[in-house]
Amino acid sequence: MSRHHADAMPHVNTDRLWQWHMRMARFGVTGRGGVNRPALSTDDIELHKQIALWARERKFDVEIDDYGNQFMRRPGTDENCKPLVSGSHSDSQPTGGRFDGISGVLAALEAVEVMEEAKIRTRHPLEIVIWNNEEGVRFRPTQMGSAVYAGHARLGPLQAAVDPQGVSLETEVGRLRRAVDFASERSLGKPFAGYLELHIEQGPILEEEQIDIGIVTSIQGTRKFEVQILGEAAHAGTTPSRNRRDALVDAVNVVKALQILFYDPLDLVRFTIGQFEVKPGALAVVPDNVFFTIDFRHHEDAVLKSLGDQVKAVCEDAAKRCNVGVTETRN
Amino acid sequence: MSRHHADAMPHVNTDRLWQWHMRMARFGVTGRGGVNRPALSTDDIELHKQIALWARERKFDVEIDDYGNQFMRRPGTDENCKPLVSGSHSDSQPTGGRFDGISGVLAALEAVEVMEEAKIRTRHPLEIVIWNNEEGVRFRPTQMGSAVYAGHARLGPLQAAVDPQGVSLETEVGRLRRAVDFASERSLGKPFAGYLELHIEQGPILEEEQIDIGIVTSIQGTRKFEVQILGEAAHAGTTPSRNRRDALVDAVNVVKALQILFYDPLDLVRFTIGQFEVKPGALAVVPDNVFFTIDFRHHEDAVLKSLGDQVKAVCEDAAKRCNVGVTETRN
Repeated sequence: MSRHHADAMPHVNTDRLWQWHMRMARFGVTGRGGVNRPALSTDDIELHKQIALWARERKFDVEIDDYGNQFMRRPGTDENCKPLVSGSHSDSQPTGGRFDGISGVLAALEAVEVMEEAKIRTRHPLEIVIWNNEEGVRFRPTQMGSAVYAGHARLGPLQAAVDPQGVSLETEVGRLRRAVDFASERSLGKPFAGYLELHIEQGPILEEEQIDIGIVTSIQGTRKFEVQILGEAAHAGTTPSRNRRDALVDAVNVVKALQILFYDPLDLVRFTIGQFEVKPGALAVVPDNVFFTIDFRHHEDAVLKSLGDQVKAVCEDAAKRCNVGVTETRN
Repeated sequence: MSRHHADAMPHVNTDRLWQWHMRMARFGVTGRGGVNRPALSTDDIELHKQIALWARERKFDVEIDDYGNQFMRRPGTDENCKPLVSGSHSDSQPTGGRFDGISGVLAALEAVEVMEEAKIRTRHPLEIVIWNNEEGVRFRPTQMGSAVYAGHARLGPLQAAVDPQGVSLETEVGRLRRAVDFASERSLGKPFAGYLELHIEQGPILEEEQIDIGIVTSIQGTRKFEVQILGEAAHAGTTPSRNRRDALVDAVNVVKALQILFYDPLDLVRFTIGQFEVKPGALAVVPDNVFFTIDFRHHEDAVLKSLGDQVKAVCEDAAKRCNVGVTETRN
């Protein structure tokens, strides 16, 4: 490609894209520079409305489905073609970063804006999507909007999802529809020709290696376990080691054995013990009860299966004197 | 000793002693067969009164000192001699066994009772003592009555000790004096000719070896430490091992290193981690904070010193990526 040709190509307007980021970061802004933007909170609905208004100004259709996913559609030259879709989520964790999720929505917005300016027509319609409740903080499960859209039948009905205050997702989707009253109804599962999503890096690797962008080649699968170790409480001053059934001593051995099981020289296995509770938790009492969780992730199903399936036996073998129970959990 | 001679000797009346135990177990009885008898609670004062009444019936002097220690004195033939004293405590832990402490008081009572019956006179006066607040549950510190009596100057004034409800020891000693209004004032630290105490075994060894009685040859000393491990919270799904400063991973290494330090093939070292807290304690968050306690006991000062003095360095060496703080604590 000649230099002349490259200059003639339409370019992303980085200033405009940055301004959009700063503008969106006001919805649910916290004192610490990030955002707290629960799915379909007033802040999140206002954000949806802003983007819907942007689309309406460009005469794009705005559509909202029963789970609160919002689509902005730029027509193609052949309306029989399925849309090419890009976007992400707008809800956040309680201590979310200001670019998380929304960057993917804004990248799609900017890409379409550049085409608008350059008067580029595409054969396929282009759609920008805001998936609802990706973080799963306000409603369970996580990734609800996209999962339902993709047809995961195991997800419960709309009515079942309520937030911790008892407000249903249905109620909040109604509120979104009233705020964006020019949006039409979207049917769930309407097929795509393709989907692309930009997302801020969730880990430290690219930043560490000073690489601007990476291509996602796989998504991590997760298995979760709860481990319960039951021993016997005893007096710290009088009970000899040989008489103890110390749940913490056994738990430490179990953790060590799990560290060996999950050790990965390639450093791709994610193995985390995040919750670890010791009872009764008194200075001079030998603990009789340790509960801990295992969060294990890997991008290959075979690894998830082979390592995950060994957890129970490894825990049981490593405990010397206590009883060990291992349960695999969902969510 | 001939059989004839042995039969002629006065014997402890085991039925009577058992009945006394059962009677005393009613003061503060819990539903689970044990007792909950805080120092100078109404139950404990009633118990003191029962024993004081027993002494008064036998025309023994009853004396109470400023810390609530109660003495029952059987005169000797030479009142210039210092008393030979035996007894124990009557207060209990919230889930105390019914023989803990009180057995030592009742053993002394029974011994004196046998002498009374056999009309045996002794040159030295014999005293039965109930030490106040041995367990330290209601008032701090533990073993307060005996420690003050023995002249440990480091203990604070009477007025400073209050229970969790704000009731002072002084108030409760006043209540004891009113309940036992025939008791006279005892001066603190009045010297003994000798002291003997029977106590129920606090550990499992004699019972395990089916031995009825053992002689105490030493008392355990204690050192206590608090260990704080500070890492960095991170996302369980995205943070590679090499980037983690996982406080639980380091804590497990520290515990392992401490287990090696305190390992004792003779099984005389008592090393207990009773309290162990992991924060933030969420399934998918790498912990950034572990706090744990060390309770270390041994009967030899030299061992207490040499092992205890190594705790800090061992903890610091074992932690790989986190910051470790070790503090020695009192109480």
